Amino acid sequence: MDLLMNTLKKIEKIDYSLDESTQKRLDSLTKPQGSLGILEDIARQVVDITKDQYPKMQNKVIFTMAGDHGVAEEGVSAFPKEVTPQMVLNFINGGAGINVLAGHVGARVIVVDMGVAQDLNVNSSSLKVKKVAYGTKNMAKGPAMTKEEAVRSIEGGIEAFEDEFSNGIDIVGTGDMGIGNTTPSSAITSVITKEAVENVTGRGTGITDNSLANKIRTIKKSIEVNCPDSKDALDVLAKVGGFEIGGIVGLILAASSRRVPVVIDGFISGAAALIAYQLEPSVKDYMISAHSSAEKGHRVIHDYIGLKPLLEFNLRLGEGTGAALGITIIEASIKILTEMATFQSASVPEKT
Amino acid sequence: MDLLMNTLKKIEKIDYSLDESTQKRLDSLTKPQGSLGILEDIARQVVDITKDQYPKMQNKVIFTMAGDHGVAEEGVSAFPKEVTPQMVLNFINGGAGINVLAGHVGARVIVVDMGVAQDLNVNSSSLKVKKVAYGTKNMAKGPAMTKEEAVRSIEGGIEAFEDEFSNGIDIVGTGDMGIGNTTPSSAITSVITKEAVENVTGRGTGITDNSLANKIRTIKKSIEVNCPDSKDALDVLAKVGGFEIGGIVGLILAASSRRVPVVIDGFISGAAALIAYQLEPSVKDYMISAHSSAEKGHRVIHDYIGLKPLLEFNLRLGEGTGAALGITIIEASIKILTEMATFQSASVPEKT
Repeated sequence: MDLLMNTLKKIEKIDYSLDESTQKRLDSLTKPQGSLGILEDIARQVVDITKDQYPKMQNKVIFTMAGDHGVAEEGVSAFPKEVTPQMVLNFINGGAGINVLAGHVGARVIVVDMGVAQDLNVNSSSLKVKKVAYGTKNMAKGPAMTKEEAVRSIEGGIEAFEDEFSNGIDIVGTGDMGIGNTTPSSAITSVITKEAVENVTGRGTGITDNSLANKIRTIKKSIEVNCPDSKDALDVLAKVGGFEIGGIVGLILAASSRRVPVVIDGFISGAAALIAYQLEPSVKDYMISAHSSAEKGHRVIHDYIGLKPLLEFNLRLGEGTGAALGITIIEASIKILTEMATFQSASVPEKT
Repeated sequence: MDLLMNTLKKIEKIDYSLDESTQKRLDSLTKPQGSLGILEDIARQVVDITKDQYPKMQNKVIFTMAGDHGVAEEGVSAFPKEVTPQMVLNFINGGAGINVLAGHVGARVIVVDMGVAQDLNVNSSSLKVKKVAYGTKNMAKGPAMTKEEAVRSIEGGIEAFEDEFSNGIDIVGTGDMGIGNTTPSSAITSVITKEAVENVTGRGTGITDNSLANKIRTIKKSIEVNCPDSKDALDVLAKVGGFEIGGIVGLILAASSRRVPVVIDGFISGAAALIAYQLEPSVKDYMISAHSSAEKGHRVIHDYIGLKPLLEFNLRLGEGTGAALGITIIEASIKILTEMATFQSASVPEKT
């Protein structure tokens, strides 16, 4: 609990004192004022976060957090549970969507075993093992994990970030892997935002109408059985959460405590963002939402926290794939701020 | 006229015969089917365009077409006319927004002088001179150019593309520079789509309320004075167009005739897309719209042609800056198609 508490304590509220000078610099560049729209907003935000007027974007890191879910036995996913460890191996071997997109944007991928149901038995510098347990318990029958495990999952995420921080992290992207994990994400979203389960539950990896009805019933039952306290984010995480979700919470808190911009991926990362936001509302300004996913609960999360997603590509893969695309847009914004010529340096006449 | 006619003749209607095999390949990759949303749609479109199941994205080229506008003397822009040549020099020196964003996505920038009002007197491999005249005439008083000049501007764009084609072009982005050029773009959009001038005219580089009212009056007057025939795209280009707009028309036609995907930038490129689409409706399927700009007429263009923009970043810079960002998303789509592991190769169990 100490690591979590200390990390929370280190998160500073962002003041916007650098906004004016950043906008002044943006306005001195050879373009009409404000003409790069959202790219200019992002540049200001990254300066506010990093307190660096020329932020670096050398070390881009995506953490893909993996965990298994006891609730998968209720038949809430289109894929068998064995896919989780196989996909982790796929991440390590470089064959997954996140590897391709992270490679495209020049980011490195760190895979974290937060609670995969089997031992992975691989030795790779891109794998960190912070396993809390061999998968959560079935939340339809009782708490997914104990409160101690919830804290450990968050602290595992913090440790993963801190371990890697010495290798350099200028921006971080969140990512997830875990068969069944849209189910706890919908449960978390419903409990915290108080939106009806039906309105925050989608088809995940692609389930049928019947399976969707079963998924909604399962989530409702999980909430009934466990009565999570919506005001106590740790209680929500413990009762209807997941280990990789806790890991992403820790990642968001750790990045914020280090003043590193954190790019939120899809729906599962969004559920983690909700918990991080409940624990410490100041994290909001450290987060940039990469995209609005095909999962309908994602919109509810954006509205609740007040985040405006960058992209709308109908993605629903997770892993950090949306975050990777978001990162390259953010890097573009920073290059605009730091690499463009000014009206003066290029001898271009200004607005009349 | 021969070059234009021959180029139009070479544009083939896209058949979708490769869609099924492309989707089959996408579905064999280690991700839930359809989970990469729009990225999968783009991958299919690029295969359809190129007829290559493993399209290359090595040579990404953005053509920034520059021209001056006689109508600038009506006070329709916030910037003086001298900015056009100065910005062209800025492009050549690498200090503009397009240089930064093209560099970020690994694209090269080719600047084309389609009709800048002065000689540029620079020797650079990134500048092509296809100057039709030293700026258009003031369209509020008569035709912006003759029909012969309209054809020459389009053919200049075709030549620019063909000159560069031997250096390799796998994907092309459009771009523009020309003080005053949202004014002819709004006129073209109003004439072709039959939408009221007020609904397709915005603030361009950032004019005041008074200047906007003057801009709308000027556009209405230009349409009244010239009576462009909405069914004759060459007549519209000649009477209320611009040389760089004609150049972009040529670029779109040439790329389509070579089965090269063409990424449409903002409002000015959109006006050129309208003319290209009127000349040959089959170009629609070769175009990918990078973004929806802050200029309200852009939406009208998208609706008229039936294009769905990738990004919504409130950009209004032009130059090809939006196209650059679009290109990196398209390249990401192609890498997904060509670089990801399959369920079989990664030994991941498939959907149950």
